Amino acid sequence: MTLRDEALEMHRRNQGKLEVSPKVKVTNKEELSLAYSPGVAEPCKEIHEDPRKVFEYTMKGNTVAVVTDGTAVLGLGNIGAEASIPVMEGKAVLFKSFSGIDGVPIALNTTDTEEIIKTVKLLEPNYGGINLEDISAPRCFEIEERLKKETKIPVFHDDQHGTAIVTVAGMINALRIVDKDLSDIKVVLNGAGAAGIAIVKLLYSYGVRNMIMCDSKGAIYEDRSFGMNDTKAYVAKWTNRDKVDGSLKDVIEDADVFIGVSVADLLSKEMVESMADDPIIFAMANPNPEIKPDVAKAAGAKVIGTGRSDFPNQINNVLAFPGIFRGALDVEATHINEEMKQAAVEAIADLIKPEELNPDYCIPGPFDKRVAPSVAREVAKAAMESGVARVDVDPEEIYNKTMKLTDLDK
Amino acid sequence: MTLRDEALEMHRRNQGKLEVSPKVKVTNKEELSLAYSPGVAEPCKEIHEDPRKVFEYTMKGNTVAVVTDGTAVLGLGNIGAEASIPVMEGKAVLFKSFSGIDGVPIALNTTDTEEIIKTVKLLEPNYGGINLEDISAPRCFEIEERLKKETKIPVFHDDQHGTAIVTVAGMINALRIVDKDLSDIKVVLNGAGAAGIAIVKLLYSYGVRNMIMCDSKGAIYEDRSFGMNDTKAYVAKWTNRDKVDGSLKDVIEDADVFIGVSVADLLSKEMVESMADDPIIFAMANPNPEIKPDVAKAAGAKVIGTGRSDFPNQINNVLAFPGIFRGALDVEATHINEEMKQAAVEAIADLIKPEELNPDYCIPGPFDKRVAPSVAREVAKAAMESGVARVDVDPEEIYNKTMKLTDLDK
Repeated sequence: MTLRDEALEMHRRNQGKLEVSPKVKVTNKEELSLAYSPGVAEPCKEIHEDPRKVFEYTMKGNTVAVVTDGTAVLGLGNIGAEASIPVMEGKAVLFKSFSGIDGVPIALNTTDTEEIIKTVKLLEPNYGGINLEDISAPRCFEIEERLKKETKIPVFHDDQHGTAIVTVAGMINALRIVDKDLSDIKVVLNGAGAAGIAIVKLLYSYGVRNMIMCDSKGAIYEDRSFGMNDTKAYVAKWTNRDKVDGSLKDVIEDADVFIGVSVADLLSKEMVESMADDPIIFAMANPNPEIKPDVAKAAGAKVIGTGRSDFPNQINNVLAFPGIFRGALDVEATHINEEMKQAAVEAIADLIKPEELNPDYCIPGPFDKRVAPSVAREVAKAAMESGVARVDVDPEEIYNKTMKLTDLDK
Repeated sequence: MTLRDEALEMHRRNQGKLEVSPKVKVTNKEELSLAYSPGVAEPCKEIHEDPRKVFEYTMKGNTVAVVTDGTAVLGLGNIGAEASIPVMEGKAVLFKSFSGIDGVPIALNTTDTEEIIKTVKLLEPNYGGINLEDISAPRCFEIEERLKKETKIPVFHDDQHGTAIVTVAGMINALRIVDKDLSDIKVVLNGAGAAGIAIVKLLYSYGVRNMIMCDSKGAIYEDRSFGMNDTKAYVAKWTNRDKVDGSLKDVIEDADVFIGVSVADLLSKEMVESMADDPIIFAMANPNPEIKPDVAKAAGAKVIGTGRSDFPNQINNVLAFPGIFRGALDVEATHINEEMKQAAVEAIADLIKPEELNPDYCIPGPFDKRVAPSVAREVAKAAMESGVARVDVDPEEIYNKTMKLTDLDK
């Protein structure tokens, strides 16, 4: 059976991938009177008196909405709400399997920014967090910013921040392998979408200053007269300060790092050869990377990462979002702030000991069961230290709890 | 431990009553590549090409949104969205336990009719049906009517139609016990809210013509000059055609049936004594009925039903909604129409054989595991016959499937 047939058969056999299951039984009068009328009135009254108790008596505190409008689904583009549901269900499967979080798929029948913001706000009572997913740029930026301001629960656009966190975690380890400093390197990033912008922002917060972002028209620089938009103009204010003009081929010369969040096969052997010594290549286009790992290696690349599971160093968001939301939910965080994102970066990077690091192992594998518990612990700690936690919890308890909740066995 | 303490403890221990669980495991590369990237792209593409396939490849076809705005929760009134969540979770527990349906609680942070309608429409892609719950009258009528017209999935306001279906099912059997015909009886119904109006409408469709509805000001009649609203005016056009004026005490004389969906203790012994021979009393105010069953019995009532589990003949919505939605989902019905509601009434009533009927047994108990399968089968049949089903299914298959899905063991 091909992967296609197998995937279709699996989705059909189960009629989707999720179910909503009771945590309590209702098979007799006594059970019914506790879970439903009349007993259920008691938690209702308690929450009505003190709204904070909704975290105590309902699933809210363990539940994350996985929200999309179906405009940027995988590499498929704008396929609409209904066609995006398999991805949202898949994300919810990962939330539960990796860190015990109840993910609820919400594919919205609109692409209007205001309608999306409004709807998520009206749904807020039910969720402890909002994971935005597969919403096209630049609308995703405004939706995230507005929801962060206008709700009281963490809002996280995984395509931006999840990707950025895992990429930077891998980059920190890759630089350790080639013995270069974040503050010294030249980075060329190809792909000016949501992920690319989040990656350069996060690298900037780690001290990287020499960065050039490219789009399909070449290097982006301040006041470029063609193909600009608000987000590119924003990035151009603090990257490529020499306003270098030119194609990817031109600007990649002497770069220490190439990061691709674009399309297949646009990085050539010659381009890699023109880079600085021991170049690092994170070619994350899906399903086919910007350069094939064996080609990159033959051209002298020292550390190579991709989005794929069949090559070493898979840069996969699943390393980040389950632990980040676990940590945020467990301390009832109001936001996922920069401190929490950096805590996630370092939790992921530091799982590999210096003596274990090697060119084929700069990032933990997606099924490494230490990842979500470690990320959850460090994110919760950062939330408490930075003042966005509403409750105080022992971080080690969060680690142990998450370890029990994960369905992985490696 | 009191019921209060026990209910609070149970809700706290579990942090709510629901979880969202994967139906597939994701613990290795192969499983991940089927449930998520890259395999998940295949069902996405299939649905994008043919939107009907969303029923095949996602949970939509087995999922019902349990939607409220928290304005009419139990007897607690307008307690707001968050405080209503325990009830919505409880409803979802019943959906899953009684007929295997995945119920998703949606408590909306608004009481604006247009905002509620808009939000539910934007959420439509995710659900195979909409169960409206605990929304105050008269807004609930417009919300239901508009959503029925403006969505392509069944919309059902359980507080109206669920209550009406179970009440009429019990009434049919009660009349068999006292050997009276629907077309001959005089019915007095007290309580002009959503449930009361749905009950008189459904009784009307069964041929009952002599009905008087009362509110707290007494009998409602056409052009009454006080305490009217649109829905009462509508009901007054086809009930109480003699325009009888007076209090409940006045109009209940010679009635064959009293139905209470109002408040405790307003039906006196004397009122029951003034009714026709072998009166039927359905006193469904919760938690305390309009008259205590022993008082009603002493006053000559022949068949007595209440909403409570500690008396015979419990009129409980759980007899209706699990099977109704099961049948509707299984044939991908676009609506729950009158034919389907009547099919549910008769499925419930007919479960008790003539020789089993007696004054203490006019309605099946809430844990009778035959109920949901029988209702599902008859509702699906009625949907197919009345042309609102999108697929054809053998009704016996639906019966057998539902029997397997129910968690009950009686």
